[in-house]
Amino acid sequence: MAIVSFQLTATDRRSAARTGLLHTAHGAIKTPALLPVATLAVVGSLDPLELTEIGAQMIMANTYHLFLRPGTDRISDVGGLHHFLGWSGPLMTDSGALQPFRLDVAHGRVDDDGVTFSSHIDGSKHRFTPEVSVDLQEKLGADVILAFADESLPLGDELHAANALDRTHRWARRCLEARSRSDQGMMGIVQGGISNELRKKSASYVGALPFDGYVIGGLQSRPRADMHRLLESSLANLPPDKPRHLANVVSPEHIFDAVERGVDTFDCLAAIQLARQGTLFTLTGTVNITADGFREDFAPVDSECRCYTCLTFSCAYIHHLFDAGELLANRLATIHNLAFMLNLMDRIRGGVRDGALREVHGEFEARWSSAGG
Amino acid sequence: MAIVSFQLTATDRRSAARTGLLHTAHGAIKTPALLPVATLAVVGSLDPLELTEIGAQMIMANTYHLFLRPGTDRISDVGGLHHFLGWSGPLMTDSGALQPFRLDVAHGRVDDDGVTFSSHIDGSKHRFTPEVSVDLQEKLGADVILAFADESLPLGDELHAANALDRTHRWARRCLEARSRSDQGMMGIVQGGISNELRKKSASYVGALPFDGYVIGGLQSRPRADMHRLLESSLANLPPDKPRHLANVVSPEHIFDAVERGVDTFDCLAAIQLARQGTLFTLTGTVNITADGFREDFAPVDSECRCYTCLTFSCAYIHHLFDAGELLANRLATIHNLAFMLNLMDRIRGGVRDGALREVHGEFEARWSSAGG
Repeated sequence: MAIVSFQLTATDRRSAARTGLLHTAHGAIKTPALLPVATLAVVGSLDPLELTEIGAQMIMANTYHLFLRPGTDRISDVGGLHHFLGWSGPLMTDSGALQPFRLDVAHGRVDDDGVTFSSHIDGSKHRFTPEVSVDLQEKLGADVILAFADESLPLGDELHAANALDRTHRWARRCLEARSRSDQGMMGIVQGGISNELRKKSASYVGALPFDGYVIGGLQSRPRADMHRLLESSLANLPPDKPRHLANVVSPEHIFDAVERGVDTFDCLAAIQLARQGTLFTLTGTVNITADGFREDFAPVDSECRCYTCLTFSCAYIHHLFDAGELLANRLATIHNLAFMLNLMDRIRGGVRDGALREVHGEFEARWSSAGG
Repeated sequence: MAIVSFQLTATDRRSAARTGLLHTAHGAIKTPALLPVATLAVVGSLDPLELTEIGAQMIMANTYHLFLRPGTDRISDVGGLHHFLGWSGPLMTDSGALQPFRLDVAHGRVDDDGVTFSSHIDGSKHRFTPEVSVDLQEKLGADVILAFADESLPLGDELHAANALDRTHRWARRCLEARSRSDQGMMGIVQGGISNELRKKSASYVGALPFDGYVIGGLQSRPRADMHRLLESSLANLPPDKPRHLANVVSPEHIFDAVERGVDTFDCLAAIQLARQGTLFTLTGTVNITADGFREDFAPVDSECRCYTCLTFSCAYIHHLFDAGELLANRLATIHNLAFMLNLMDRIRGGVRDGALREVHGEFEARWSSAGG
């Protein structure tokens, strides 16, 4: 059953950072790794070849979105999600539990057996349970699938958080029992809101279940110090020989922080969303290419970046594409932002391997200003 | 001065079709050739690498549009249009004379010295003359530029047509005199509305001027029989050793018709515009991929097509992308439509070379139905 396995290849002596190989039915990836998110079976406006060219090793798709459009049965009929979107590398899906609570229009309502919600597209009613989620993810056929968890974001409410956690733990067992495919790995979800105690308890409980890896859930949009504390509580009790995934990272600082605490994989929608607005990463922080100052700037976005966008086009050209409403704007911006993040992962892996992660981090932070753009 | 030259490599015995090499400062192209149109310095949503991959040899950009946005001076500052859009192959620009009469909002007004019009973006007033057009095109720096012509579409009005033709001829001389760059070729424009006599007269006049090639202008949207007649009148008196360009072809039938009458190059915006609406070429005609019937069609758009889109994705996936409003929809559709047309050009060149153009044409027409989709 262990088609998904994790092999540690190096550990940092001065932090909990490590490098590894995550093996799946569609090949292995080098960790720490960043997974671009293909919400609707497409990453930004990039195609699979471009993803490979910029160094994406594994991508993530959203079960909720694909369930609603075009439908998981339809994707199953065509031979699964790999085939549908033309991606032959490793693929992860989430459980579908998150969106009913993050999309305002979906009105997720949780009970002990599952989540009821309205489609954000047409308002139609649907219900996900642990068993439904596993069934949908088996139809999609990703290499790594996630357990269904209570994502109703308890945060400040301790009683709610404790109840949600019990539910997430019961559902974790139900997800493991519901599996019928042997070519997919499954990751369990560590929750616990903003309580260190609940996070430690969750990691102990879920970490003892026979998952192929673990996701640190519910840490979106926390202040940096909070994030550090909660990450540490979540990670301390997890088995060290299994991969740990952090959902929805936003910026390079978060990645360094998490890698140094022992996170192996990330999914990242933010770089794609920022690109859509013309917000681009550079080594000194973000810039917005639609600003007037770029109208006559004939330099590349980032002179040290070797992505296709930076090697080929000027800021003035990309500014022009945004100004003219040309679709290529979005794509060139997405290529750059993802290439920037994927290149950063490469430097991080090199840092761990060479025992120089602290220096890589220090060099990065010395130039980077998150106040940019 | 003859940096642009044309070399005939084969002629068809049963028609006026021929193959050749058009040499420019940025390399040679094999003719008959189709030039995808980069209206705003981008072809559909494709990037230059993709254009090369699908077999585009030369592309065309629109001086009117680039003059207004981002501005010809700005493009000149960055080192010219090749550099601005990252295309290192041969490039053609039009004269800017057409859009003031084709965009309803531009309200082109012609007089003996030039054309006055309003920007379709902000209504600002501008004036193009032959000298202005050459200056703008020299700033853009394409390999082949076009003479400025009266594009006010006289069609049915013989007196207007004769006047417009005289103007076009006077302007042709002014354009030749206004040139200051030696690395660009210039093509003259044959006009004459729907009159055979005027077209023959125009071809004799313009054909005697020292242009590097000739454009058959003003033949958009004519019925097929009219098009044949007017093409023949336009081409009969042109020097056979210079390339002939037909502006704005729409469909494969037009290309066969024009090649067999001696046309060497085409520009084509239609394939890109159709792709945007989901109208795709197949060997049996056009289909609209957004139609319900494609929702569960797991075959490629055209099973004989070897473009990236057809080799990688199903109709169902492309339908899904259009349905979900994903930008990748546009791109995959554009890749296919242009690849389809460029592949057709390849077959046409092979047909001329092997003395089998009639058979290639016959096979194509036997399957193609322009009533499709």
